[in-house]
Amino acid sequence: MSAAPRPWIEAFAPATISNLGPGFDCLGLAIQGAGDRVRVRRSSTPGVRLCRVTGDQGRLPTEPEANTASAVLIELIKRHAPGAGLEVELDKGLPLGSGLGSSGASACAALVAGDAALGLGLGHPQLVDLARDGERIACGSAHPDNVAPAIVGGVVLIPNLDPLRLISLPAPRDLWIAVYTPGCEVKTADARAVLPKQVRLDQTVRHAARLGLLVHALHVGDLALLGEAIVDELVEPARAHLIPGYLDAKVSAIEAGAIACSISGAGPTTFALAASEERATALLEILEEAFTHNGVAGKGWVDRVGAGAQITSKQLH
Amino acid sequence: MSAAPRPWIEAFAPATISNLGPGFDCLGLAIQGAGDRVRVRRSSTPGVRLCRVTGDQGRLPTEPEANTASAVLIELIKRHAPGAGLEVELDKGLPLGSGLGSSGASACAALVAGDAALGLGLGHPQLVDLARDGERIACGSAHPDNVAPAIVGGVVLIPNLDPLRLISLPAPRDLWIAVYTPGCEVKTADARAVLPKQVRLDQTVRHAARLGLLVHALHVGDLALLGEAIVDELVEPARAHLIPGYLDAKVSAIEAGAIACSISGAGPTTFALAASEERATALLEILEEAFTHNGVAGKGWVDRVGAGAQITSKQLH
Repeated sequence: MSAAPRPWIEAFAPATISNLGPGFDCLGLAIQGAGDRVRVRRSSTPGVRLCRVTGDQGRLPTEPEANTASAVLIELIKRHAPGAGLEVELDKGLPLGSGLGSSGASACAALVAGDAALGLGLGHPQLVDLARDGERIACGSAHPDNVAPAIVGGVVLIPNLDPLRLISLPAPRDLWIAVYTPGCEVKTADARAVLPKQVRLDQTVRHAARLGLLVHALHVGDLALLGEAIVDELVEPARAHLIPGYLDAKVSAIEAGAIACSISGAGPTTFALAASEERATALLEILEEAFTHNGVAGKGWVDRVGAGAQITSKQLH
Repeated sequence: MSAAPRPWIEAFAPATISNLGPGFDCLGLAIQGAGDRVRVRRSSTPGVRLCRVTGDQGRLPTEPEANTASAVLIELIKRHAPGAGLEVELDKGLPLGSGLGSSGASACAALVAGDAALGLGLGHPQLVDLARDGERIACGSAHPDNVAPAIVGGVVLIPNLDPLRLISLPAPRDLWIAVYTPGCEVKTADARAVLPKQVRLDQTVRHAARLGLLVHALHVGDLALLGEAIVDELVEPARAHLIPGYLDAKVSAIEAGAIACSISGAGPTTFALAASEERATALLEILEEAFTHNGVAGKGWVDRVGAGAQITSKQLH
């Protein structure tokens, strides 16, 4: 008796903003308005087959080992379901190399769908650990600041990698985010290459103190303090020149009353924070104008802190 | 008509524990069980006269400009009450060079008494700014992590110096502290000289992430997380060898279940955290045994997070 094909299970994982000022490599947040979708179904053939990739303009690798969505499923099977088989379809909603955790979103959606398809019921730390393998494939380093919020949702601090510790921080209810992805690309490898290798001790102290302030500001819901905390002496100054028009955009956004404005992840996506939808909409126009003026018009929207990866459709057997 | 002498006003300022793991140079807490007392009264002779210093075994300077208690009052008058005169008596309750913010406590008690004597009503940021001048005189650098909690009380994060920002963090109600000052001295200048000048970027990230965790742990009152956060890769490893027996004491305290154990300030005072008075008492015995075994028996006690500097006696006119 040959088995009927199992139903597809689809999961969505959100875009994420990392490098919130002093949160470099250890803090990120999920947003609502953009993300990737992955469909997974069990197959009687062992291993992982990447059946379809859409929305990437043909730019992503299609070998299962090289594409983050399928690569993390290979690892999932190896660790938790030896001998199992999965078919995968990836539907990219996020632009590549944008600083919005695009590779992480693919990995997280794949893992949540794969976990459900295999009936594993893995917890957040296990899923984030697996998703970091996807990051290693996509950009050569396994930082958790995109995949942790993409799995958990909200704002997540990752104070420790071994053992992995995920700390969900409260997100102020009145926080609105203008997100703008200029029409240029920053390779994560380039963005890593410009980072300082060493930091002066006094700068380390200030960096840490600002992250402390950021965590405090989230706990007390004080957006003005949050803005004071999102200052970055280490990473932003090294990367700003990789994004044409970034400093113009930032100065204009801050002058217009943004709570904070900085680079999301490795860039070029730039975010500005506001206390209302109206202000965020005004900031979005300011970002758009600055980047357009600098010849890198792109795409932007107003967003909010959102949920983590989840199953979006599941046909019953 | 010659004026009758004005009444003495006495203030007490507490000992403080700074360098709580990742809180180096930016976070400290006030304790209850020890501190300095300063008496101040107005005088018709302009300037500051240091009339008496007790409890220091004759080791502190008696020139008003060189003693932190009087030096900060000279600055107080210069900035806020030009032409005024004050007489000062300092009663040292804290050992010198112990890592318990001894110079800061003298400065803070003097300022709180002086502020009252002159009827100025200065706020915490102004008093902390002035107290930092005392730190500059005492140890050559004006770090605020002792004087801020000595003025404000509780646990204080100082994320910014200019303008000075003081953030009071919630202190868990069930936090008990074993404090032990071994019988040896660490000069702050020596303790500063051994610090690394530069820090690797990945260490900076971990340091900052742990301070984020520490702030979170205080907000949610989770002592186990607090213990996870009080880990210091930067300062403690550089300073441990300055204190005979410190590593023995730490290992024994952690093995005995201390939430955390580290060096207070520049040392040699060592603190261990516990969730009950009984456990803190047991930890104190362990610290005492380790330091005694290493030939530096000293003095210890069990303490709690306490209030900031305050007026303790005030004769009415």
